[in-house]
Amino acid sequence: MSAAPIKAWAAMEKGAALTKFEYTPGPLGNDEVELAVETCGICHSDLSMVNNEWYFASYPLVPGHEVIGKIAAVGAGVKGVKVGQRVGLGWHAGYCGACEDCHSSDENLCARSVPTIAGGARGGGFGDRVRASERAVVPIPDSVDAKSAGPLLCGGITVFNPLLQFQIKPTDRVGVVGIGGLGHLALQFYAKWGCHVTAFTSTKAKAAEAKAFGARDVIDSTSSEELKAAARSFDLLVVTANVKLDWKSYLGTLRPKGRLHFVGAVVEPIPTPVFALLGRQLSISASPVGSPAAIAKMLDFAGRHGVKPQCEYFDMNDEAAVRAAMGKVADGTVRYRAVLVRESA
Amino acid sequence: MSAAPIKAWAAMEKGAALTKFEYTPGPLGNDEVELAVETCGICHSDLSMVNNEWYFASYPLVPGHEVIGKIAAVGAGVKGVKVGQRVGLGWHAGYCGACEDCHSSDENLCARSVPTIAGGARGGGFGDRVRASERAVVPIPDSVDAKSAGPLLCGGITVFNPLLQFQIKPTDRVGVVGIGGLGHLALQFYAKWGCHVTAFTSTKAKAAEAKAFGARDVIDSTSSEELKAAARSFDLLVVTANVKLDWKSYLGTLRPKGRLHFVGAVVEPIPTPVFALLGRQLSISASPVGSPAAIAKMLDFAGRHGVKPQCEYFDMNDEAAVRAAMGKVADGTVRYRAVLVRESA
Repeated sequence: MSAAPIKAWAAMEKGAALTKFEYTPGPLGNDEVELAVETCGICHSDLSMVNNEWYFASYPLVPGHEVIGKIAAVGAGVKGVKVGQRVGLGWHAGYCGACEDCHSSDENLCARSVPTIAGGARGGGFGDRVRASERAVVPIPDSVDAKSAGPLLCGGITVFNPLLQFQIKPTDRVGVVGIGGLGHLALQFYAKWGCHVTAFTSTKAKAAEAKAFGARDVIDSTSSEELKAAARSFDLLVVTANVKLDWKSYLGTLRPKGRLHFVGAVVEPIPTPVFALLGRQLSISASPVGSPAAIAKMLDFAGRHGVKPQCEYFDMNDEAAVRAAMGKVADGTVRYRAVLVRESA
Repeated sequence: MSAAPIKAWAAMEKGAALTKFEYTPGPLGNDEVELAVETCGICHSDLSMVNNEWYFASYPLVPGHEVIGKIAAVGAGVKGVKVGQRVGLGWHAGYCGACEDCHSSDENLCARSVPTIAGGARGGGFGDRVRASERAVVPIPDSVDAKSAGPLLCGGITVFNPLLQFQIKPTDRVGVVGIGGLGHLALQFYAKWGCHVTAFTSTKAKAAEAKAFGARDVIDSTSSEELKAAARSFDLLVVTANVKLDWKSYLGTLRPKGRLHFVGAVVEPIPTPVFALLGRQLSISASPVGSPAAIAKMLDFAGRHGVKPQCEYFDMNDEAAVRAAMGKVADGTVRYRAVLVRESA
């Protein structure tokens, strides 16, 4: 373990542009590992945390929770990973390990889980090193391209986990609402899962790319005619967009027993008409990332099926590049995921 | 088959009090059966249809969709039931029989299903006879008390079906919101299913009865303190009430992966905060009655476990009694289900 301070990029206060920031994380915990960061994807929730949109950020805040790195040091009690091993780290840096959810392989639902980018003493992946509990890191199989793998650790597992949670079958018809960082991975995962996949987007220019990612059809997400024409079509709609849409029309596109599932933090409440749910036994739901076991399954699946984020790379050692990457995430112009790369250092 | 007209009680127009009404149903269809009605439970939805609250009633409207009767005549193509056999008839009098839902034993979700009490040419169970397709009637096993069985055919299956649909386990904790016709059956079913059951009611006088029906705990459904104290407690909440409650607080009582499930037609949309669903992977859903196969399973289960509606009986031959029964359903004073009995005729 290096005794040197961690060199990172941080928002020093709510909404601030990222600046150089060094911090000393103290002794490595018994169950902790320290990663030498190789790459780190940028997720929209990094921005939400910088801007404290969810009211639990503290500052200085080092973003970054789609980390790929090599284990540089391990705590005395660490048993499952070794120095030099390449692992990924996502939204959670730790779990209580003692609750029913942790015991049930649902660590991502643990009430005492620790976000990687909570801020304060806990720095994220926008640094040369980052720490997490052993339980929160997942080995990266050789079948997965390490340079582009970061976004799988948050964006990827967020859209993959519903396949596991809701026992989605290859005979199901699945729609993906919003084709961005999460959506472009969802299209790939669901197509490789064997499903008939439909992309919903309001950006005409994305239609061809959506098909290249695995969509069989593309629907204009804002067209009430196209939504009406798709009545009773889908077993699962996964909403990756954070915008307000005509949810009642979306419910209309679901087949009996269908599910409208949110993986983005849509802020405005969804007005849910019970009658619309009742006749077809529909569900509305949402879920956060996935457990370490689910992440491991996803990485294996991605490796075997060639599911891979399409990335724009930025130099993590260059302040202008880091800021430019954050700016592109903020204005939604990344195609499809921004990744900071440290190995060029 | 009797050629005589069917003698029934009908609302001759929207909202009208029930009056004597005779109608001739015409030739019996190839796949139809005619029941000699013995008893008929009264469901709140009979009132909703009389009042055309759901906009698809037509008049004259003969209510009654919790029917117990003996097969009096069968169409030429009927294969599975015989004259003289006692059967039950619920919300649906027929299904298309040709769609994926019908083929999947989800007839209750069939888009072309026919309600027993649609009105017009289709009369319900408030008569001496009633007709339905063979597929819509379910034999009543000897283990089930025929006199009180009517309410199982709609109220009973409505609360039983979620156990099947959502793979509820005896280790699950289940709450029942609203202890009336449906709720008092839900408490019995869920307790006999092996679950820890909690009743939610705003009527203090129902607490002791709720425990007698199988509730281990009783929570005041309008107390924000009691709801807060029950945080993260339930795997499933089944809402039988048709009133507006503090749904956000109810979501707070769900354990990770929990479900807030509506079986009553709550008219006002539920404002659904995605963030509240996201952290614990919660679902909001609703469902209508159940398939014939599910009804058969329910009847067998009810017979083996002694699940039985608590009924107030009214003479179906007596206009004043029929009107009094409808009045008690309207003002919510029935304990717990009103049943019209014809056999005294």
